[in-house]
Amino acid sequence: MNTFGNIFRLTSFGESHGTAVGGVIDGMPAGIPIDIDDIQRQLDRRRPGQSDITTSRSEADKVELLSGIFEGKTTGTPIAFEVRNADHHSADYSNVRSCFRPSHADFTYTTKYGLRDYRGGGRSSARETISRVVGGALAMQALRSVGVSITAFTRSVGNIQLSGTWDTLDFSLIEQNPVRCPDMDTARLMTDLIRRVKADGDTIGGVIECVICGCPPGLGEPVFGKLHAMLGSAMLSINAAKGFDYGMGFDGTAMRGSESVDRFHTDPDGNIRTSSNYSGGIQGGISNGMPIYFRVAFKPVATLLRDVETVDASGNPTVLHARGRHDPCVLPRAVPIVEAMAAMTLLDAWLMNQTTHLHKP
Amino acid sequence: MNTFGNIFRLTSFGESHGTAVGGVIDGMPAGIPIDIDDIQRQLDRRRPGQSDITTSRSEADKVELLSGIFEGKTTGTPIAFEVRNADHHSADYSNVRSCFRPSHADFTYTTKYGLRDYRGGGRSSARETISRVVGGALAMQALRSVGVSITAFTRSVGNIQLSGTWDTLDFSLIEQNPVRCPDMDTARLMTDLIRRVKADGDTIGGVIECVICGCPPGLGEPVFGKLHAMLGSAMLSINAAKGFDYGMGFDGTAMRGSESVDRFHTDPDGNIRTSSNYSGGIQGGISNGMPIYFRVAFKPVATLLRDVETVDASGNPTVLHARGRHDPCVLPRAVPIVEAMAAMTLLDAWLMNQTTHLHKP
Amino acid sequence: MNTFGNIFRLTSFGESHGTAVGGVIDGMPAGIPIDIDDIQRQLDRRRPGQSDITTSRSEADKVELLSGIFEGKTTGTPIAFEVRNADHHSADYSNVRSCFRPSHADFTYTTKYGLRDYRGGGRSSARETISRVVGGALAMQALRSVGVSITAFTRSVGNIQLSGTWDTLDFSLIEQNPVRCPDMDTARLMTDLIRRVKADGDTIGGVIECVICGCPPGLGEPVFGKLHAMLGSAMLSINAAKGFDYGMGFDGTAMRGSESVDRFHTDPDGNIRTSSNYSGGIQGGISNGMPIYFRVAFKPVATLLRDVETVDASGNPTVLHARGRHDPCVLPRAVPIVEAMAAMTLLDAWLMNQTTHLHKP
Amino acid sequence: MNTFGNIFRLTSFGESHGTAVGGVIDGMPAGIPIDIDDIQRQLDRRRPGQSDITTSRSEADKVELLSGIFEGKTTGTPIAFEVRNADHHSADYSNVRSCFRPSHADFTYTTKYGLRDYRGGGRSSARETISRVVGGALAMQALRSVGVSITAFTRSVGNIQLSGTWDTLDFSLIEQNPVRCPDMDTARLMTDLIRRVKADGDTIGGVIECVICGCPPGLGEPVFGKLHAMLGSAMLSINAAKGFDYGMGFDGTAMRGSESVDRFHTDPDGNIRTSSNYSGGIQGGISNGMPIYFRVAFKPVATLLRDVETVDASGNPTVLHARGRHDPCVLPRAVPIVEAMAAMTLLDAWLMNQTTHLHKP
Repeated sequence: MNTFGNIFRLTSFGESHGTAVGGVIDGMPAGIPIDIDDIQRQLDRRRPGQSDITTSRSEADKVELLSGIFEGKTTGTPIAFEVRNADHHSADYSNVRSCFRPSHADFTYTTKYGLRDYRGGGRSSARETISRVVGGALAMQALRSVGVSITAFTRSVGNIQLSGTWDTLDFSLIEQNPVRCPDMDTARLMTDLIRRVKADGDTIGGVIECVICGCPPGLGEPVFGKLHAMLGSAMLSINAAKGFDYGMGFDGTAMRGSESVDRFHTDPDGNIRTSSNYSGGIQGGISNGMPIYFRVAFKPVATLLRDVETVDASGNPTVLHARGRHDPCVLPRAVPIVEAMAAMTLLDAWLMNQTTHLHKP
Repeated sequence: MNTFGNIFRLTSFGESHGTAVGGVIDGMPAGIPIDIDDIQRQLDRRRPGQSDITTSRSEADKVELLSGIFEGKTTGTPIAFEVRNADHHSADYSNVRSCFRPSHADFTYTTKYGLRDYRGGGRSSARETISRVVGGALAMQALRSVGVSITAFTRSVGNIQLSGTWDTLDFSLIEQNPVRCPDMDTARLMTDLIRRVKADGDTIGGVIECVICGCPPGLGEPVFGKLHAMLGSAMLSINAAKGFDYGMGFDGTAMRGSESVDRFHTDPDGNIRTSSNYSGGIQGGISNGMPIYFRVAFKPVATLLRDVETVDASGNPTVLHARGRHDPCVLPRAVPIVEAMAAMTLLDAWLMNQTTHLHKP
Repeated sequence: MNTFGNIFRLTSFGESHGTAVGGVIDGMPAGIPIDIDDIQRQLDRRRPGQSDITTSRSEADKVELLSGIFEGKTTGTPIAFEVRNADHHSADYSNVRSCFRPSHADFTYTTKYGLRDYRGGGRSSARETISRVVGGALAMQALRSVGVSITAFTRSVGNIQLSGTWDTLDFSLIEQNPVRCPDMDTARLMTDLIRRVKADGDTIGGVIECVICGCPPGLGEPVFGKLHAMLGSAMLSINAAKGFDYGMGFDGTAMRGSESVDRFHTDPDGNIRTSSNYSGGIQGGISNGMPIYFRVAFKPVATLLRDVETVDASGNPTVLHARGRHDPCVLPRAVPIVEAMAAMTLLDAWLMNQTTHLHKP
Repeated sequence: MNTFGNIFRLTSFGESHGTAVGGVIDGMPAGIPIDIDDIQRQLDRRRPGQSDITTSRSEADKVELLSGIFEGKTTGTPIAFEVRNADHHSADYSNVRSCFRPSHADFTYTTKYGLRDYRGGGRSSARETISRVVGGALAMQALRSVGVSITAFTRSVGNIQLSGTWDTLDFSLIEQNPVRCPDMDTARLMTDLIRRVKADGDTIGGVIECVICGCPPGLGEPVFGKLHAMLGSAMLSINAAKGFDYGMGFDGTAMRGSESVDRFHTDPDGNIRTSSNYSGGIQGGISNGMPIYFRVAFKPVATLLRDVETVDASGNPTVLHARGRHDPCVLPRAVPIVEAMAAMTLLDAWLMNQTTHLHKP
């Protein structure tokens, strides 16, 4: 279950403090020109140490591609890649080796597998998302060639919420502030909150919103492969994600049908469009050509800079002493991960949709 | 993509007004005693016409099992089942044949496939959920034999919201009222609201909550097969679902880490438990032995008892005249569907978990 | 594991003496006109009782389609179908209930599942191939629309072997004799042998050859999804199959490379072809545009009209008394099954190949 | 389609002259002690340059494991591995860049993908089998812990055929001669033949036989996942494979049922066994506890040390000049690859079988 997708498939590997993290992408369409610098740029957006509101750990995270690209183009064969981990050999893990950190995966991994690589969280570390970002960057390059764009941003941090629907926002501002919010004033409030939380040795959650433009109608497979079910599964698989909704979402449960149906009309170019977009660009599980938008809830991460009471592997009480560096809020670094998962999901749905009718080659 | 699951798999088929709807279940464990009456009871819970707040259509929906059960037990071979549709031959579909109902799948199916079975919504009809309920009833019988129980209920309808965490509620009341809410006063308010909405020819949405008890630690596959990602995908695939969250969910995004970590302790029986359960029974994508709970948002359905302006297949304006009967609110009938999808997901995760270690047969 | 295929998928169900056998086809391309009579004709080719060299059991095996076809065309939604079994309620299974027939699946099913439906072989009965023939007939109708033809015939029965490569044979003769051999003299020898074997209460095996013409280059996925590996798996999954080879096959192991490489040339239409076809139309796992041909070995079936010594479920010696009717040789009835599996495999490979490049819809 | 298996899955990557070849293994059971030296030993058995009858190319092929193993044991997380390719930058590929080698994958890859990495055969090179051998070595270590052994050997080279059933042979001799044949006299004849063929600049094919001992009854999924269909698909996916049969195989087609049924008896330990084993250890697609044996046909490879007439990418005639080094016969190096594919198939079937019944964890 370390493979994501049906036609376009990412198989991910690696532990936080093992030799390398990386992945293999299978089903990438052939003949797509690849910009390796752009892949590294996406990785740099998720890199620790990029601002004072992310962890102060600093890792270069340089990606190396091992196969599947020839003379600058995809060949249709698997694209393997890896990011070597820095040398952690001298590190001291005695504090986590024999105890279960609260609200982490230590207990569940140990119970399921009988053992775990406890160094830096092992496989359950968010370092695993490196492979998602690389996979997403490759998918995004394919999608861009057919006119699709995907943009995520921070919608809320704690109680600080950005107001206004996504189409009223200036996306060019997203990368202008460390929290990746497309409004400079709100971004400042969010950043201040994160700094205060960090000073307390605490953490805080929030919501990321993502918008997909340029998606043609027809993507998504009805019933169990509904496009929003695929997107939801993709987003919920990201570390610390606790919820997903799309279009009118949870708020729409309080609306009446007469307020929220999306009336059809024909636009000047002869395309059938809807006047409103409460559906979120998806009807019956299939894209309808309108923008797709959704939200992902992220919890406050569980690593606190405080001593925490817990139990050891035998169930005896113990105290886990605060140590090291951590992200007080995952949202800024999760923005490129949400985009990456959206890109892989959409490319996969796109390729599946190419099998709807029979064509002569 | 009409197959759900990895080891335990439901393949669903059927259109609203075709010959039959049904499915095939593969990967059902062998040797499970099957109570066919119980399957029918579950179907009766989703049946139209069961109360004055559901559609007044009345269909018997009698299920027939075609294979896979011998002398009252599962044999490990596929279990096929079907519910024959009533004879709709004389029906008049001229009003929907050539126009796209707003916020339905008419436009997207036609665009994707080039044609659609327009009778009663065809494949996009909620009649498809019959196969989910049968599949879920079979999965539930297997899970019950290993001590798992799954209960869903209506948490909110429009702005009427049931307060209190699930563990403060009396689940024995759920089937005592037509809206399936475990509080009789709130149920009455919800029912009244639905009646008013119905009188207006309108519809209303809401939220269903679901609780899984008795799930052992270890279920769920890390990374892309996280248990909550599987549950989310399952729930979002239900007609009219717009969102999913679990544990502290969207509300938890405003919490601090220090408030929301679940401390471990050892209970009197020597089991490691958590004192709180903001995690929702899942940590790192794997069940931790605590109850699993989640919420699903349902939109107000788009079928109104009012004339609606729309376009026809050529994009020309037309008016769709109100006709027929419909559900003013899907929630009461969606409760058994949520339970069914949860049961199939959990059984699938259970069986996958049986492959974690190598055993001699 | 009762599902075959990746994009075009058949999920099969049913036991010999259960309520029905059938299946669900998912991933069928939309918009294909369907000739239901042709499906029934293919079923009639595998029907028992069609000649004096097949079993004298006579079952009508009428197929009913339950979904997925509207106004004569596929809609892209699942096509479910079933063949109701005749009423076997009064039959007496006491002779097989508590003993293991040699070289049947009785022992292995009981060991694996802990129980088995022993009536008429249950799920291990060749009656299961009904669903393959229906699935194949539907796939064949799609393939025919893009110029592909698939023809199988009996190459050998026991030591009676048809000589000459397939391209020297007159395929119009295949349905002119009960053994389905495209040479009337050889067919007569084969038929005589089968009659003699039957008179002995014995059985005999043989080889079926199959030829696919009109397949364009490009089908098949390299490495694990090689077209011949997919075909091999499909053929070996047929009851009584013991071997598969393609192109020069086992005989080619004695050849030298210099004798057996297929030289390229350009034909008058400008297409690149090979002068010989030892490759069997597949190179590197991908079709090269030349005819694809392969062979399938079938064992003599194990049901003899003789008393057989065996053991019962407790391992104690017992004698199984000869009873009933059986096929002395499966080959005549297996010819349409081989064609059906080839059609489903090829259509699946065709649809997968449609995802090799990214296209705008 | 670069992933093999259902539960135990190998995803393979890499081109002959790219940066690396390797793979990711997912679904490996947790807690298995791993002997990395043994993996390297298996790789050394497939290494080029190991004797005068294999290619004289010499590559070290040192494997590096990147993840999934901790303190000497598998953790249940993906095991990634790679073998870096030697530096081929200075090589001259002008002779193959613009022409299609006969009976290679040059033409089909170019037609399918629109481009190909032509250096050393790219993805279609047998160098890809490195990932199979590593995957197989890991699977074999798991299987050994539950008492399974897998042994392959060269049964024939050209017309030189080893006689006698496998159980009459001395497997300790297999690694005592370069052709991997368990009879020293036959091995000498085979080696002499390969040397003569090599001196001619030609190539020769042959048959490898493989035997699995210690497999318990119950492995394999009926209908499409029959154990021999899984094995057949695995073997046919190996480069140069042209055929597969098991048990009585193609030879059995000339037998009568009365000669070839495998009678049951109870052995002194109370286990039900068969007196003969024409079934090849598999009945109804499920292992019956007897040894499993099968054969794989390999063609003479198409790379000749002779000038060959062919066409270029435009279809114009050209001559491909002989160059470089090659294997005159793939069989000696294919023996460990057959074993590896058998090990991965069997472990996958073993793990799937663990889902047949529901167990409490």
